[in-house]
Amino acid sequence: MNAVYNELTGGPAQPNSLARLIDHTLLKPEANETQILQLCREAIEYGFFSVCVNPCWVKTCSQQLAGSEVKVCSVIGFPLGANRTCLKVAETERAVQDGAAEVDMVLNVGRLKSGDIPFVRDDIQRVVRAAHPSRVKVILETCLLTDEEKITVCVLAKEAGAHFVKTSTGFNVAGAKTEDVALMRRVVGEALGVKASGGIRDRRTALAMIAAGANRLGVSASIAIVTDAACAPIA
Amino acid sequence: MNAVYNELTGGPAQPNSLARLIDHTLLKPEANETQILQLCREAIEYGFFSVCVNPCWVKTCSQQLAGSEVKVCSVIGFPLGANRTCLKVAETERAVQDGAAEVDMVLNVGRLKSGDIPFVRDDIQRVVRAAHPSRVKVILETCLLTDEEKITVCVLAKEAGAHFVKTSTGFNVAGAKTEDVALMRRVVGEALGVKASGGIRDRRTALAMIAAGANRLGVSASIAIVTDAACAPIA
Repeated sequence: MNAVYNELTGGPAQPNSLARLIDHTLLKPEANETQILQLCREAIEYGFFSVCVNPCWVKTCSQQLAGSEVKVCSVIGFPLGANRTCLKVAETERAVQDGAAEVDMVLNVGRLKSGDIPFVRDDIQRVVRAAHPSRVKVILETCLLTDEEKITVCVLAKEAGAHFVKTSTGFNVAGAKTEDVALMRRVVGEALGVKASGGIRDRRTALAMIAAGANRLGVSASIAIVTDAACAPIA
Repeated sequence: MNAVYNELTGGPAQPNSLARLIDHTLLKPEANETQILQLCREAIEYGFFSVCVNPCWVKTCSQQLAGSEVKVCSVIGFPLGANRTCLKVAETERAVQDGAAEVDMVLNVGRLKSGDIPFVRDDIQRVVRAAHPSRVKVILETCLLTDEEKITVCVLAKEAGAHFVKTSTGFNVAGAKTEDVALMRRVVGEALGVKASGGIRDRRTALAMIAAGANRLGVSASIAIVTDAACAPIA
């Protein structure tokens, strides 16, 4: 399917290559500081691309990860996407100040469902502008969208200068599906990244998402995925 | 148990009395403008206390409800409560500007679980100050808390000048339980309101919450609850 997938499956298990595609994620509201610091230590140890956390933990993670290659990723307007654009902008500015190299914003699904495309476009554009030079992923929450709506959002995200489209928050009725990843990749081409997230709990599923076109994975079971010898590709 | 419950159960069905205790709620992210406007019409028709919506719909509802007695209630930091305090404050200020008479803020559960009581107190206090003269409900997300933590948050909410404590977001693993409502009422006494929310889908459950000490209900099945003759109290 793609170079990343071939690299991962064409030779002996290469956990580090896979690790570099993972946003090591802890978003449950009851996560405490000890668990957030543990997340950072794991990200350094296994070489994950980033830690993905709620906004109130971004500064803590930035301090903890200073001097390492691990980035900090903050969610924005999460997980409903139903706050006002000005608040998503303010939340983005603060997250970037706190050290977020990437922000994962949730689409305003309700405005999309109301047919208010200008609102949705503006919502994304203003977050992209506020984040610069940090990068923006637009979360579609695919389980709530028709295929036509998924395509529309991918086009809007691309036009708005977003850097990734992302399938799911992990907080709604369903997470990433390979067919959605494939659809999103077809629409955005190679210009944008595609992040699969939500319900990816084993290496087999992770590799299936990459085969479908994902070049980033949002997962909490990251360590199991990169160390799962049983499911590792065979040389 | 209390005057409200006696009034509701001591005579013939009084849907209007019950209706005045209800925040008529629509928080799912895919709710569109048509559904939000319908929510407002229903609130006027049945005499609900308020409509409870996501921040991006507060202005729409305020305009729609102008001249009626129905209030607008916005959620804040919803449903994870894990954004920064300054963002909760900004979101509150905007919601009040947009016409919210009440704001339902989510506790920072993760900071509570980290033992950071000063953070949790400050988080609530600053939202209360930002909301004034609008009223603040503090959402505990009881399903995530120990009884000791529930008591702590009720005390902090009372000290901070909040107007209500509220059980649940409706977006986590469980909603309102009568034993939690009773505990919260015992801790806050008559000084604060207690709002039961999450999973209240019929009149029997609604009345049980009121009997346990709730004087506000957050429900989506509001019309079924106020018109359910089968479960109505009998004269």
